[in-house]
Amino acid sequence: MAVIRRLPRYYQYLNRLQKKGIQKISSTELARMMGLTASQIRQDLNSFGAYGQQGYGYNVVDLRFEIQNLLGLSENYNCIIVGAGHLGHAVSHYERFAREGIYITAMFDVDTELVGKNVGHLPVYHVDDMGKYVKKHKVDIAILCVPADVAQGISNLLVGCGVKAILNFSAFDLNVPEDIFVENINIIDSMFTLTYRIGEKKRHIEEDLNESMFEEEEDVTTLF
Amino acid sequence: MAVIRRLPRYYQYLNRLQKKGIQKISSTELARMMGLTASQIRQDLNSFGAYGQQGYGYNVVDLRFEIQNLLGLSENYNCIIVGAGHLGHAVSHYERFAREGIYITAMFDVDTELVGKNVGHLPVYHVDDMGKYVKKHKVDIAILCVPADVAQGISNLLVGCGVKAILNFSAFDLNVPEDIFVENINIIDSMFTLTYRIGEKKRHIEEDLNESMFEEEEDVTTLF
Repeated sequence: MAVIRRLPRYYQYLNRLQKKGIQKISSTELARMMGLTASQIRQDLNSFGAYGQQGYGYNVVDLRFEIQNLLGLSENYNCIIVGAGHLGHAVSHYERFAREGIYITAMFDVDTELVGKNVGHLPVYHVDDMGKYVKKHKVDIAILCVPADVAQGISNLLVGCGVKAILNFSAFDLNVPEDIFVENINIIDSMFTLTYRIGEKKRHIEEDLNESMFEEEEDVTTLF
Repeated sequence: MAVIRRLPRYYQYLNRLQKKGIQKISSTELARMMGLTASQIRQDLNSFGAYGQQGYGYNVVDLRFEIQNLLGLSENYNCIIVGAGHLGHAVSHYERFAREGIYITAMFDVDTELVGKNVGHLPVYHVDDMGKYVKKHKVDIAILCVPADVAQGISNLLVGCGVKAILNFSAFDLNVPEDIFVENINIIDSMFTLTYRIGEKKRHIEEDLNESMFEEEEDVTTLF
């Protein structure tokens, strides 16, 4: 699983290398760029059948192509955004998706102010029409940008209509059948992880301070 | 580390329970809600010094309060958004942050069309003025919504001026000193994890199909 998590990162780095016109890369160089070890890189890539050449390294174009295939990006995907608020709007502007064959074709919302209009370049339809749309256009992936309290209901509807995967921004842990893939992006949780760490560091500093004060007191006692 | 990652989730669930007016919760009920086991829950909470009462469970208000403290959310944080594009705009609308004492007070960009204006309710200043602002307002956390190619430069500037933590949407692996905390949110990588899984499932189905065809062929051979 950890290897799979690293695959998109390999892909991003190889894209950058290819764009710069770099033709070959050693595991050592790639390791330095990515903050991994060279042996980790070789192990990861070997596990996917990509072997570097001794004294040459990896051919950037070939390796990039192999990882693109592995990531399923030689196929096209139909995609919708559910929730036409600010976040849905922001995600609709990720041009990178279309360049990789992931085509976002519509947004859905319940807000009658938005339904029938365009948000960015995408038409907004009513959630009531979502099921029909998903079936007709064989939607593979739904990007869920709805509030937590409606997320499960929307997810049930999407899964029932044949959606295969959900990119879930809703801060709700979706309950889906085993063969449906969910990736959670929880912005609030990530922020709280940062405040936890800042707080933890502060607690450590205070503890150290208390300890050193205690030590000083001891020293004073010893003196008398 | 895995426990720390679950802390924000505990907090979200306890918030919901408290909002519903539920006063106590057993580890079994909490486990069912969160898709964990009751013993996992008890172990997690014990490790933070929160013990349930036999036959009663946990007091929701108390446990929520303890986890809020642990997450550092009894303190206030000053926060800025760097990059006033669609994503920065979307994040600026997360009202939840202010409710938890995380105050986003300004946005920064290089786009002269945006600088001097408001995006949502936030003023947009030029990135050249960011260092001074960060020092003056003792900014704790920066939310990085800039393109990958400028992310490291901006990060260096932020760290140099005293920022303690970065919520990084930039799809670039930042190189920061050890005592600076970074949380990466990579929307593109999460999407590619989904396409990987859809592709993998398809490959398995094709393999199974090939195998079963092969088996049939064998059967035929055996028949003759």
